[in-house]
Amino acid sequence: MKKLLEYQFPQDLKTMTENELELLSYEIRDFLISNISKTGGHLASNLGVVELSIALHKVFDTPTDKLIWDVGHQSYVHKILTGRAEGFQTLRKFGGMSGFPKVKESEYDTFDTGHSSTSISVAAGMAAARDLAKEDFKIAAIIGDGALTGGLAYEAMNNVGVSKTNLVVILNDNGMSIAPNTGGVSKYLSKLRGSRKYTDFKKRVKKNISEIPGIGKGVVSGMQHMRDSLKYAVLDGIMFEELGFKYFGPVDGHNMEVLLETLTMAKEVDGPVFIHVITKKGKGYKSAEETPSKYHGTGPFDPTTGRQHKSGGSVPSYSDVFGNKMIQMAKTNNKIVAIGAAMLEGTGLKGFKERYPARTFDVGIAEGHAVTFAAGMTAGGYRPVVAIYSTFLQRAYDQMIEDVCLQNLPVVFAIDRAGIVGADGETHHGMFDLSYLSHMPNMTILAPADRGELEQMLEYAMTLEGPCAIRYPRGEAMDLGLNCPIQGSLVIEEGRDVELWAVGNMLTVGFQVQEVLKKNSIDAGLIDARFVRPLDQKAITASAERTRLIVTLEDNVITGGFGENLAAAMMESPVKVLNFGWPDRFIEHGSIGQLFEKYGLNPESIAERICEYLEKQA
Amino acid sequence: MKKLLEYQFPQDLKTMTENELELLSYEIRDFLISNISKTGGHLASNLGVVELSIALHKVFDTPTDKLIWDVGHQSYVHKILTGRAEGFQTLRKFGGMSGFPKVKESEYDTFDTGHSSTSISVAAGMAAARDLAKEDFKIAAIIGDGALTGGLAYEAMNNVGVSKTNLVVILNDNGMSIAPNTGGVSKYLSKLRGSRKYTDFKKRVKKNISEIPGIGKGVVSGMQHMRDSLKYAVLDGIMFEELGFKYFGPVDGHNMEVLLETLTMAKEVDGPVFIHVITKKGKGYKSAEETPSKYHGTGPFDPTTGRQHKSGGSVPSYSDVFGNKMIQMAKTNNKIVAIGAAMLEGTGLKGFKERYPARTFDVGIAEGHAVTFAAGMTAGGYRPVVAIYSTFLQRAYDQMIEDVCLQNLPVVFAIDRAGIVGADGETHHGMFDLSYLSHMPNMTILAPADRGELEQMLEYAMTLEGPCAIRYPRGEAMDLGLNCPIQGSLVIEEGRDVELWAVGNMLTVGFQVQEVLKKNSIDAGLIDARFVRPLDQKAITASAERTRLIVTLEDNVITGGFGENLAAAMMESPVKVLNFGWPDRFIEHGSIGQLFEKYGLNPESIAERICEYLEKQA
Repeated sequence: MKKLLEYQFPQDLKTMTENELELLSYEIRDFLISNISKTGGHLASNLGVVELSIALHKVFDTPTDKLIWDVGHQSYVHKILTGRAEGFQTLRKFGGMSGFPKVKESEYDTFDTGHSSTSISVAAGMAAARDLAKEDFKIAAIIGDGALTGGLAYEAMNNVGVSKTNLVVILNDNGMSIAPNTGGVSKYLSKLRGSRKYTDFKKRVKKNISEIPGIGKGVVSGMQHMRDSLKYAVLDGIMFEELGFKYFGPVDGHNMEVLLETLTMAKEVDGPVFIHVITKKGKGYKSAEETPSKYHGTGPFDPTTGRQHKSGGSVPSYSDVFGNKMIQMAKTNNKIVAIGAAMLEGTGLKGFKERYPARTFDVGIAEGHAVTFAAGMTAGGYRPVVAIYSTFLQRAYDQMIEDVCLQNLPVVFAIDRAGIVGADGETHHGMFDLSYLSHMPNMTILAPADRGELEQMLEYAMTLEGPCAIRYPRGEAMDLGLNCPIQGSLVIEEGRDVELWAVGNMLTVGFQVQEVLKKNSIDAGLIDARFVRPLDQKAITASAERTRLIVTLEDNVITGGFGENLAAAMMESPVKVLNFGWPDRFIEHGSIGQLFEKYGLNPESIAERICEYLEKQA
Repeated sequence: MKKLLEYQFPQDLKTMTENELELLSYEIRDFLISNISKTGGHLASNLGVVELSIALHKVFDTPTDKLIWDVGHQSYVHKILTGRAEGFQTLRKFGGMSGFPKVKESEYDTFDTGHSSTSISVAAGMAAARDLAKEDFKIAAIIGDGALTGGLAYEAMNNVGVSKTNLVVILNDNGMSIAPNTGGVSKYLSKLRGSRKYTDFKKRVKKNISEIPGIGKGVVSGMQHMRDSLKYAVLDGIMFEELGFKYFGPVDGHNMEVLLETLTMAKEVDGPVFIHVITKKGKGYKSAEETPSKYHGTGPFDPTTGRQHKSGGSVPSYSDVFGNKMIQMAKTNNKIVAIGAAMLEGTGLKGFKERYPARTFDVGIAEGHAVTFAAGMTAGGYRPVVAIYSTFLQRAYDQMIEDVCLQNLPVVFAIDRAGIVGADGETHHGMFDLSYLSHMPNMTILAPADRGELEQMLEYAMTLEGPCAIRYPRGEAMDLGLNCPIQGSLVIEEGRDVELWAVGNMLTVGFQVQEVLKKNSIDAGLIDARFVRPLDQKAITASAERTRLIVTLEDNVITGGFGENLAAAMMESPVKVLNFGWPDRFIEHGSIGQLFEKYGLNPESIAERICEYLEKQA
């Protein structure tokens, strides 16, 4: 057998036997473990879809047939099978291969995904376009059971179910999103998984297959019969059947034979098909099977022992600081409750949940519901804290305005992963939140510059009568000793030539910029903005009276962000404002340092532009 | 029997007999028809829930028990039954009673609703708070089958189903949202409606009731038995059963007896209950029964003939202009397709659908799916036009960024009802779109000042390679003769003292402001901005060189909108910018004229502030 890098994929799959494909799955697992242990990346989810990805590329004629990977972090095997094995050396690195499907990267990537639950909508749109153009190719959406808790997936299924269009939805059911799932659908799926029919399914499929004269268009009427018999054999699939899908499953997602057979059949069925595939997250790698959430997105690790390299010793992340502070506050305030959207661990709430299980609500990948549920929970004096990553909170934009801000309800939004996040790239950077929050009436927006401020801001948020958003970045929490009660912006040093207004994590950059400016004999001051909304108008006016130029620094797009809001508040002042932040475009993946440098947000570049500006004004 | 205004509601309901309640339903229908024929308002949906609303207030102990009305325009009967019959004289008028539930208006209104599909999430939150506080009251969410197509409702049901909390979801199934529904769930519901069990249901309920010794906690075990027998009698309810609800129905929503019995039972059941109530939109008023969509939101009409008073003769609305232009463009461009979210008629696409049924996609109340579906449809060169009201498009904020803008896909957003909409008030004003669109990379944003510009902008949008949003207001389309190809902003007149930059419909206001200023010997110019993004930088620079002050006028919140974007683009210029738009708060209901006046956006107020500013600067 050839080595992985020697194949011409996906073409070579077409001539491989079932046995060879099974051997290939071992080779791919080795390849994944070996590579991701060096580069880091999404391991567990990809180990779970090795056979499924192989079977899909064997059965479907990509790129003519279209595969859409929901969320997309499980597309590594798909990348290997579409000529991108070599790309794994630069996986998620600046300028290297993305960890998500990217249309620009390959013709086999049909749609850029990253946020959950979009694949069925996309597939439905592609199918509608295909049908209008009277073209004839296959479309399959591969979606996890976690993503199935998102309302968008349901909106799409509701539509597809009656459209009669040819479309295959493949449920990759591993009983988890990043953490184990909850919810009625999840419970329903686990009932299906546990049903005795699962074990029999392979046998039944074979039996039915043998009754069908040949695979091809003629198979359809046979399929109809088989579908009916399956429907009643597996009555539980009725939920998807009632929505208008033909349901097949559950299927063992690590059994190549049954996967190939099921996909081959599904391909030939008319109308929407739902295939329920059972997989094991982390399959084939013991450490990842045992604790898949640890190997969901992992840094480099030792492939033999599975030991993950600690990135920064014992410095807590902002998520840790948040989680610990939540536990502390909850001790004395029994009205505090925590709400998460399938990210309790990622947002630092694991400990809170252990301590206060009854006061912790994980609603699944359902950000909109998380927010409206929180609004409901303010009844009876409860103080819900909704912890969601900045980029995913975009999903609840409307609910924040209509269900929280409109009635000025005291919901706290703990916005983690705000600003650039690094390796996950375009779909995961939290660079819009200051812009989408700033125009929400009644919303207070805070950004801590260090761990002490995060703690103080949580205390402060609990004193407010209305909604409050606190946004903080991914990674290690700074300790700048700023642990004092929150009262407006904090002037760290005044400056006659320029005053730097820094938002949150940009204060650290501000210190460095200040240093460079001072070396250039510029009297540069520094202010920790703290408040993005309402702006500290008094401090802004005082700053404008002291200095010649105000510079704003924020880890957010410039448009509609802190800097523009501050400039608007100073419209009548003669002092000019210079805004630094992300430009009006999507930012690729790479290390945070590399991205700051590329886009001129490193201290040297900022200082240089300020010097130029001052010279021009002089 | 007393007159409607003489009752002490809801207390008096408690002592009324079933017959009296039935008589009351006639009186309420008369009252609704008589009042709404004078004031206008939502008629058909309220006629459909008369018996249901009476039964709810008879059985539940409001305000201790909580009723949450999804969307909320069907809360008129609830308002009558909670002491607000007199409010109907000022319904939806400035300073008068809202057409939606408002916590500020009554203790019986438990949550402000307006956008669809939120009620189950809210109820779930309230139930969680109640359970934590170990309180004991009932919570019921009343949701239409249209709202059930929204993903948020599904996210909530998925959660509630496993929570075991006491909560009643009442499906008000009239087979419509504003127009008839489509989708798998809708088809499923109509199957339930048509099942023979429906007609038998009343009998069976009575039989089971008689087997139960008394109503109270003891009823529960009896209920369990009954539930099981019902489950198998009405196997179709299994979709909701599988989600974790106890399903009862379908129930005749115009039969007081069966409604009272069912609600009484449901109240005593432990865990989440789903009651499927069949109602007829417009029930009891022939014209509204026959064409419910005409009487969904109606202006004043003749109660005897049902004839609706035409508001403005033959002037087409912007929606009409849009719909007609779509038909015209589709004739020569077979790649144009239209996508709507349960609002084809409201957005002017009814004619398009008649002409091009295969190219029209109504996805139901599912704005997120509409947008991602559109993104999928760009495959194969299709040019989807997504027509959604500004306020509801907020639901698809994330999908616009991640699924459309990220890949720079050529989706056109026809954003109707942008700006203040009037009587529907806070939840329906489209006053945030310029702010939420402005920071989306790759998005072009246009605003037409008259019907000719709307047509030209649609043509222009089709020439772009990426996404484009065109936002226009509710109501009659202006005809200012601006029907010429779109190329940047349009300078209508230059002005040495001040130049007014007007966005879309504000151009009309701009003309009037200009007139007032000229009378005050101020040399005022006027520019039709057309482009909100990208800004016409060349025209802005030229304007700043000609004039002393730039004034922006937009029917949008100031924060993050056109004016602040323009000011940011002029940060290095010595010319000052003065922004007019909506302030940083929610705007109540009232006529558009009254609201413009209250918030200083009428021509006189704007001119006055400009004069003051110029004097201060001089």
